[in-house]
Amino acid sequence: MSLVVVGSVAYDGVETPHGRVDRMLGGAATYIALSASYFTRTRIVAVVGDDFAQEDTDLLLNHRIDLEGLERVPGKTFFWAGKYSPDMNDRETLVTDLNVFADFQPKLPERYLSDPYLLMGNIQPRLQRTVRGQMKSLRLAGGDTMNFWIKDFREELLATIRDWDFLLINDSEARMLSGQNNLKKAARTILDMGPHTLVIKRGEYGAMLFRNDSMFVVPGYLLDDVFDPTGAGDCFAGGFIGYLAQQGFDLEGDHISRGELSRAVIYGSVMGSFCCERFGVERFRTLEPAEIDARFEEFRKFTAF
Amino acid sequence: MSLVVVGSVAYDGVETPHGRVDRMLGGAATYIALSASYFTRTRIVAVVGDDFAQEDTDLLLNHRIDLEGLERVPGKTFFWAGKYSPDMNDRETLVTDLNVFADFQPKLPERYLSDPYLLMGNIQPRLQRTVRGQMKSLRLAGGDTMNFWIKDFREELLATIRDWDFLLINDSEARMLSGQNNLKKAARTILDMGPHTLVIKRGEYGAMLFRNDSMFVVPGYLLDDVFDPTGAGDCFAGGFIGYLAQQGFDLEGDHISRGELSRAVIYGSVMGSFCCERFGVERFRTLEPAEIDARFEEFRKFTAF
Repeated sequence: MSLVVVGSVAYDGVETPHGRVDRMLGGAATYIALSASYFTRTRIVAVVGDDFAQEDTDLLLNHRIDLEGLERVPGKTFFWAGKYSPDMNDRETLVTDLNVFADFQPKLPERYLSDPYLLMGNIQPRLQRTVRGQMKSLRLAGGDTMNFWIKDFREELLATIRDWDFLLINDSEARMLSGQNNLKKAARTILDMGPHTLVIKRGEYGAMLFRNDSMFVVPGYLLDDVFDPTGAGDCFAGGFIGYLAQQGFDLEGDHISRGELSRAVIYGSVMGSFCCERFGVERFRTLEPAEIDARFEEFRKFTAF
Repeated sequence: MSLVVVGSVAYDGVETPHGRVDRMLGGAATYIALSASYFTRTRIVAVVGDDFAQEDTDLLLNHRIDLEGLERVPGKTFFWAGKYSPDMNDRETLVTDLNVFADFQPKLPERYLSDPYLLMGNIQPRLQRTVRGQMKSLRLAGGDTMNFWIKDFREELLATIRDWDFLLINDSEARMLSGQNNLKKAARTILDMGPHTLVIKRGEYGAMLFRNDSMFVVPGYLLDDVFDPTGAGDCFAGGFIGYLAQQGFDLEGDHISRGELSRAVIYGSVMGSFCCERFGVERFRTLEPAEIDARFEEFRKFTAF
């Protein structure tokens, strides 16, 4: 069943110990949608400038991503550049040119409004709320946020996530949002803020899923080489929601299952791991569904006891 | 079947965000032996001074630990003091008084020499080699080391671990020993140094087991409160080798099983998690075997998908 993804479509400049790319397709919505497209029909709501290249549009279209909600306006596409530390666990932002993204007002095409799944990438909480409010028959809605909104837009963020089914953030964001250093306590605090389900991403250390009555933890996939971690968290989100959308999952309905949610976390981890194998979105030019299934089984093999 | 543990028995002073204890029983061999004693008959080879308290001897005896190899000499017992960072992922050493441990020469009682299992805690590699050389019918021998020996006693350490079945170290030590930042590559390099089996401890992030033909990864147990992480890695080692000794495991024989080794990693994780619940060795005053089994099942529950 269809998934609507709202967020940034951008150009990135990235430097890692494995090399440097000055300009390539990026942005949270791009990564989320490419990842989710392996599981379900996906639609993007975003804005780009008139410099947005046809080849990048083509990559998205080749993944059958619906671009009716991808607005094109005069000006330049959002540009971000960053440089990773030698162990790639930290990165320094070198450039943030919001360009046309500065005035982004998500416009949902009429036929998106009755889609059952919604993933909101990291944008202004108020904009996320506007989008959520327009959707008419959601089965599952959730998204991401970041330290900036947690710190300086706290009330707006709390009002926003109150209506979400799930929140997908990393461990330092979970600590900041909850004011708790211990992740188990942090999870309890956050689950009291609204979402039924919390997914905490821990980068190379894997991910955790918390609900009031259960918990699931998976270690990270060990890659031979991490070329570029940019977008890995967004690809995780895309795999997570994409799998649930494919299964027709309904948190509010009869289908609440710890098993399905756990498998969604594994698919998220699988997609995040593929993302790191090449620069930017490169891996998605060649990735085949059979590789996804094989890596899912690898996860089973190295975690079973 | 019996396990011989060689290493330090000490007094520790520890400060964590949960409080401070000026002097309490500690030392790698103490933690390893207490943890392993829940699984198998355990014997200690270590040295203490004449200040070593009867109540501490009694705690070890209450766990049926054989103390014939615990030498008592005039002088003071090894004393270490440290203070943990607020998130307890780092610690600063405040005091290291080697005292009688400075001249430690492990002396193995005659009846220890034919025991089948040997765990060497973090001591001078040359001493570890001497101990290994005296044992006559080992089924499984391995141990721990640390950055100091890896950096300044590299050749001696390499000559020592060449004869080990397993090496148990943390992730930064694995990186330092192998010269590889990527843990998968680090593991491959270390497995070429001698040990059949490598266990990499990752603190709150869990542990990984590598062999040439397989890999197992488990996330850490999420505690409500980490009171004191001192000794957790040693308790992991004790649970790991203790379980294998209990099972009569023989790496060189017919019983090589990824399944058994994985369960040993889980028992290690279980024992490490209990250790953190109280200061020092306190948790082992009350810990019951049924609690260990219950936590093993909890691991299964929160990692299965």
